[in-house]
Amino acid sequence: MKETIEMKWCGDMAFEADVDGHRVIMDAQPKHGGNNKGPSPKPLMMVALAGCTAMDAISILNKMRVELDDFSVVVEGELTEEHPKHYTSMHIVFLFKGKDLPVDKLQRAVELSQEKYCGVSAVYRQTMDLTYEIKII
Amino acid sequence: MKETIEMKWCGDMAFEADVDGHRVIMDAQPKHGGNNKGPSPKPLMMVALAGCTAMDAISILNKMRVELDDFSVVVEGELTEEHPKHYTSMHIVFLFKGKDLPVDKLQRAVELSQEKYCGVSAVYRQTMDLTYEIKII
Repeated sequence: MKETIEMKWCGDMAFEADVDGHRVIMDAQPKHGGNNKGPSPKPLMMVALAGCTAMDAISILNKMRVELDDFSVVVEGELTEEHPKHYTSMHIVFLFKGKDLPVDKLQRAVELSQEKYCGVSAVYRQTMDLTYEIKII
Repeated sequence: MKETIEMKWCGDMAFEADVDGHRVIMDAQPKHGGNNKGPSPKPLMMVALAGCTAMDAISILNKMRVELDDFSVVVEGELTEEHPKHYTSMHIVFLFKGKDLPVDKLQRAVELSQEKYCGVSAVYRQTMDLTYEIKII
């Protein structure tokens, strides 16, 4: 199965990507010649990871009939200081909020994503230390 | 060096990530329970790649005093059919437009990014077939 994204230059260090008709603007910080009009590209690797695993979790929890009041995800990445500056580890924190949440089902949903479904995790895990934890509020 | 992104759930399959104050919306297609309010997460892996290597190239070409009329990047990714559905290859097309462009400098700028500077490419290359080509208009 093939997927394609297109991206055009908007002057200086700004770029606009088109993903199935959705625009994603990227830019560099002023210290790197940009104007900070959008996120820098590298952290989008963490955004892709957070989104992919969170959509899995929500989808599985829906099937388990678990109702959440709130849900958020934080990803922390460790970058090398030397070129090519790249992530050597990422840690995902899943924060679930709700009344009398079933801990075992939350853990199972996250495990299923991390071990079976999340294609972003599957790629990153081959090259970096990928860990996660679950917090329930 | 540590970097962090935060992402909150917006109901159904929609999520909003915060990257240094910049919002990135993600959503699933209706066939996957979403409302298509934003890009799906996985192609953002290709957006991160396109942005990272293109910013390197522009930055190097600026130092070489090469002036472009236009510049765009296309990334094609090949996904597995089986879970976890993940990219097994990506191909980057760099499209440069301008008058009397110095081919050797364009090639050198792209090579420097791909071989030395681009931290997204450095990660992906360890797990998938990563190729590129340069087109000059």
